[in-house]
Amino acid sequence: MSNDTKALEDLKRALRRLPGIGTKSAQRMAFHLLGRDRSVARDIAEALLRAVDRIGHCQQCNNFSETEICAICRSPRRDSGLLCVVESPADLVSLEQSGAFGGTYFVLMGRLSPLDGIGPEELGLPKLEALLDGGVVREVILATNATVEGEATAHYIGELARRRNLLATRIACGVPIGGEIEYIDRGTLARAFSGRREA
Amino acid sequence: MSNDTKALEDLKRALRRLPGIGTKSAQRMAFHLLGRDRSVARDIAEALLRAVDRIGHCQQCNNFSETEICAICRSPRRDSGLLCVVESPADLVSLEQSGAFGGTYFVLMGRLSPLDGIGPEELGLPKLEALLDGGVVREVILATNATVEGEATAHYIGELARRRNLLATRIACGVPIGGEIEYIDRGTLARAFSGRREA
Repeated sequence: MSNDTKALEDLKRALRRLPGIGTKSAQRMAFHLLGRDRSVARDIAEALLRAVDRIGHCQQCNNFSETEICAICRSPRRDSGLLCVVESPADLVSLEQSGAFGGTYFVLMGRLSPLDGIGPEELGLPKLEALLDGGVVREVILATNATVEGEATAHYIGELARRRNLLATRIACGVPIGGEIEYIDRGTLARAFSGRREA
Repeated sequence: MSNDTKALEDLKRALRRLPGIGTKSAQRMAFHLLGRDRSVARDIAEALLRAVDRIGHCQQCNNFSETEICAICRSPRRDSGLLCVVESPADLVSLEQSGAFGGTYFVLMGRLSPLDGIGPEELGLPKLEALLDGGVVREVILATNATVEGEATAHYIGELARRRNLLATRIACGVPIGGEIEYIDRGTLARAFSGRREA
């Protein structure tokens, strides 16, 4: 595409760095943004610059926040005795949307992954340990992903909690709602069996 | 998601205005851009602002261009006697990639669509007519989409060419390469039959 202007080529290359965006989608976006209404492109650029300037991490839970302590950590309505540990801000959003949890969070911004050089320090676990030592938390709910790395991370943090005589619980693993047994993988079915409860 | 900070909410809303991006993808992008390497967000913002500032339309063919006349229109290697009319810059890119065409283009930036208020004026057809009157163009190749609106647009522009005693041709419609007759729709098969050539 040697006929592209430099600015257009640069824009396509920049858009390709968005997650899930390949060459075709980047081109489609670039042409769309250069179309009749160019204010969209300016709005996106400004929102990006404002976001990277203003958004930092909550000093307490590590989630994205514009303030030193985020809205959830500040809220008097949340039970700070229940601490739910999640891997990412996206996980926190999903749990909040479920409406199932009224406690507070700790966001790891990742998972233990020694091969990628991500150990306890990189996940801010010293900060989590200080929180657990604070005398407020009663129960640590481990809501990391049900992947190998998520399980390892949950196991590690569970140990940190138990060492302080705090209750550590893991969210249940089993058949999702609407799931048909025929199509559920073996591993999940095994976990659903071992985790069965009185009906 | 009342727990989102304003800047984060704004960023998600801005990203949702990209074509093909819904709520989930916008969130994924936002969290990704706020991750460890924030230079990506800055790069995208700057590429957007530079693009909308610098990229205008070629005075001759209407394609996106940073210069008054684009590289294709300026090139002495292109046959300016052959003028290919396309709906969008993306169509032009696809045709260039096919390597099948060595002439010049006219980009409509749309198609005739009276219901949406897009008539000959909005498509810059007076500019196209001036080009046809210039005495250089011998053949107008109509490469608008094989949709109802694309066909109507091709028909209209074909008339403009014929009225000036210029040859007007339409790209062929038929079975795509690798296409299996069994799975080709009836309309396409009918067109492939009526457009058959001696083998």
